[in-house]
Amino acid sequence: MNSIASGSYEVYLEELAEAAINQHIKVKDYSKVFVLVDENTKQHCLPKLQKIVGPVVDEILEIPSGEENKTIQTCTTVWRNLSDYGGDRQSLLINLGGGVLTDLGGFVASTFKRGIDFINIPTTLLSMVDASIGGKTGVDFGSLKNQIGVINQPQMVLIFPDMLKTLDARQITSGFAEMLKHGLIKSSEYWDSLKTVDDYTHADYIRKSIAIKNDVVMEDPTEKGIRKILNFGHTLGHAIESYFLKNPEKSALLHGEAIAIGMILEGYLSHELKGLSMLSLEDIKTTFLQHFEKVDFSEEDVKIIVDLLKHDKKNTHGNINFVLLQDIGAAILDVKVPTPLFEKAFAYYNQ
Amino acid sequence: MNSIASGSYEVYLEELAEAAINQHIKVKDYSKVFVLVDENTKQHCLPKLQKIVGPVVDEILEIPSGEENKTIQTCTTVWRNLSDYGGDRQSLLINLGGGVLTDLGGFVASTFKRGIDFINIPTTLLSMVDASIGGKTGVDFGSLKNQIGVINQPQMVLIFPDMLKTLDARQITSGFAEMLKHGLIKSSEYWDSLKTVDDYTHADYIRKSIAIKNDVVMEDPTEKGIRKILNFGHTLGHAIESYFLKNPEKSALLHGEAIAIGMILEGYLSHELKGLSMLSLEDIKTTFLQHFEKVDFSEEDVKIIVDLLKHDKKNTHGNINFVLLQDIGAAILDVKVPTPLFEKAFAYYNQ
Repeated sequence: MNSIASGSYEVYLEELAEAAINQHIKVKDYSKVFVLVDENTKQHCLPKLQKIVGPVVDEILEIPSGEENKTIQTCTTVWRNLSDYGGDRQSLLINLGGGVLTDLGGFVASTFKRGIDFINIPTTLLSMVDASIGGKTGVDFGSLKNQIGVINQPQMVLIFPDMLKTLDARQITSGFAEMLKHGLIKSSEYWDSLKTVDDYTHADYIRKSIAIKNDVVMEDPTEKGIRKILNFGHTLGHAIESYFLKNPEKSALLHGEAIAIGMILEGYLSHELKGLSMLSLEDIKTTFLQHFEKVDFSEEDVKIIVDLLKHDKKNTHGNINFVLLQDIGAAILDVKVPTPLFEKAFAYYNQ
Repeated sequence: MNSIASGSYEVYLEELAEAAINQHIKVKDYSKVFVLVDENTKQHCLPKLQKIVGPVVDEILEIPSGEENKTIQTCTTVWRNLSDYGGDRQSLLINLGGGVLTDLGGFVASTFKRGIDFINIPTTLLSMVDASIGGKTGVDFGSLKNQIGVINQPQMVLIFPDMLKTLDARQITSGFAEMLKHGLIKSSEYWDSLKTVDDYTHADYIRKSIAIKNDVVMEDPTEKGIRKILNFGHTLGHAIESYFLKNPEKSALLHGEAIAIGMILEGYLSHELKGLSMLSLEDIKTTFLQHFEKVDFSEEDVKIIVDLLKHDKKNTHGNINFVLLQDIGAAILDVKVPTPLFEKAFAYYNQ
C-alpha cells in the first residue's frame, strides 16, 4: 500500500508519489507552478523535487525557516511574491518543508485570491506523520500558536522518506513524539512496536502513523469531536512551547520535545482522573525520557505556563478541556481538569 | 416573503431579522458575542442593534471606515482584540457595516482560530444587495482589491432598510449600481422597473436584488462558472477603482461609481463582440449617466488602467476574461477581449 485515501485528497509515498505529482500537474494544466522552500529545503530537498517534476516549476519562493517566522508578516511576503510573479487563480503552490512551512504555505494558498491549489511535500518526520495531514493551515499570532488559519485540504501529500537523511537527530526525535502519540491514543500494539524498533523512519512506520491520523481526521474533519484526541499532550505541550519560544532565558524547544513533556504531564492527569494505571503512566514517562532530555521547570515557570493555558484555542467558555487516556490506546475527550492538578503533574515530571 | 434561503444560511429582512438573531444567539449559547463597527455604524446603527439584541453583546470592536483600511493590518488589529478580550472558538462576531467591514470582518472570523461563527448586518445599500451575500470575504493587498480572502458563509444575513436613512446620497447611489447590474445580467423586467422607480431602497427592491444574487450564488458557490456573471462591469470597474484609489491626483470613486463606468465600458464591448444592440447600449449609458456623474479619463489614465487589468484576479493564463451581455437580462461568460477594444470603449464613454 503506497497511497492512503484521505477524503478529497491522497497521501502518496515513495515511487507512487513521483508518478502522482507528474500526472496531477499534467492533468490540471496550471498557469504557474510555484515551490515554497526555506534555506534548508532549498539546499537538501529541492534538487530531488526538480529531478522528479522536471522543468514545470516556474518560480521558487524562499522564506526563512523556524517557528519564529510562522507569522502573518511572512505570509505577506509570499502573497506579494505570488502576485508579483503573476500568480493567478489557476496557479499551484507546492510546499516543500517542515510543519512551519506546510502550515504557512497552506494558509497562503488557501487565502491567495480566495484560494488556489496546493500540494504538501513534508520534509521532516514531524510534518510527514502529523502537520501535513489533515488540512489544518495557519500561522502563529503574538505568543499564541496557530491562532490564525483555516481548515483546507491540499490536492495531495507526497512523502519521500529519504528526504529525512539530511535532517539532524533532534528534528527526527521531535517527529517521533507524534508517532508515539498515535500509539497512545489509538493503538497499544503500535506503541509497543515503536518502543523496540531500530529505525522508526522506515516507510512502514510512517505509513502506520499517517493511517491512524488520517482515520481520525476523515471521521471528523472540522474537529467537532473525535479529532480532538490528536491533541493529547498538546494542551500543556503548546503552552510550554509558547513559553519557551518567547522567554529569552530559555532555549526554544522543538514541537515534539514540548509535546513529549505534555504527554507525560497529561498522562499524570489521566492517572489521577481517568484511571490510567500507574504501570502505564511509568511506561509513558520512561519511554519519553529515553528519547527526550529532561527539562527543568521552576515554580515561576509553572505559574506562567498555567496562565498561558487560558488562551489555548481549544478552550471554550473559560474551561480548559483535556484529552486524557483511560488506557494506552484509548483516549477520552473533553475532560475538565481542576487547576491544582497542574502543579502536581509538573511535580511528577520533575521527580 | 421576509427570508431568503441561501444554502447553509438565511437572509432575513426587517421584523423577521430581529426574531432570527435573538433565536440564533439563544440556541447557540456563544461564549462571547463581539460586534465589529466603524465610526459611522457605531454612531448610527449600533444603538438599533443594541435595542434588538439587548445585553448579549460582550465587546464592541471598532475599525476605521474606508476602502484604504481594508488591509491585513486592520485584520491584525481585530485578531488581536478578539484574542485580548478572550475570544475562543465558540465566539460570535457580528459585522455591522458596509461592504468593506463585512468583507474584512468575515475574513477575520473565518481565520480566527481556524474559523468562528459570524453574522453580517449590512448597513449600506451596496452591502445589502451585494457584498454581504454570497460568502466572499477578504481584504485588499497593495493596489489589488480582494487579493487575500476565503469563501465562507455567515450564519445569517440581516437586513434593516431603515439603517439606510443616515447614509449620504452618494453611498445610496453607489449601491444602486449593483441593483441595476442584477437587472442587466438576469432580468430585463427588473432593469426596466428600476429605471422608473422613485424609491429603490424600499424592501421590495432590495429583496429582488438579493434573490437574483442568491440564485446565482447557490448555483455556483465557488465561482467555477455561472457565478462569474456577477462580475459584469467589475473587470474594468475594479481596475478603475484601484487606479483612482492609489492616485493622489484623483479623488477616490465609490465601488458603485467605478462599476457603473465599468458597465458602460463592458456594455460597449458587448455591443462590439456579442451583438448587444446599439439601442440597449445607449439605454445602459443613459441610465447610468442619469445617476452617476461623468468622470474624465486621459490617454495616460487609460493606459495605466489597462496595465492594472493584467493583475485582476479573474485572469487565468494571462488572458483577460470578461462577462458580456448578449442582451439586457442575458449575460455570457469567459469572453476574451482583444486589447485595442479597451481604448475604443473608453472613447465611447468619453463621447
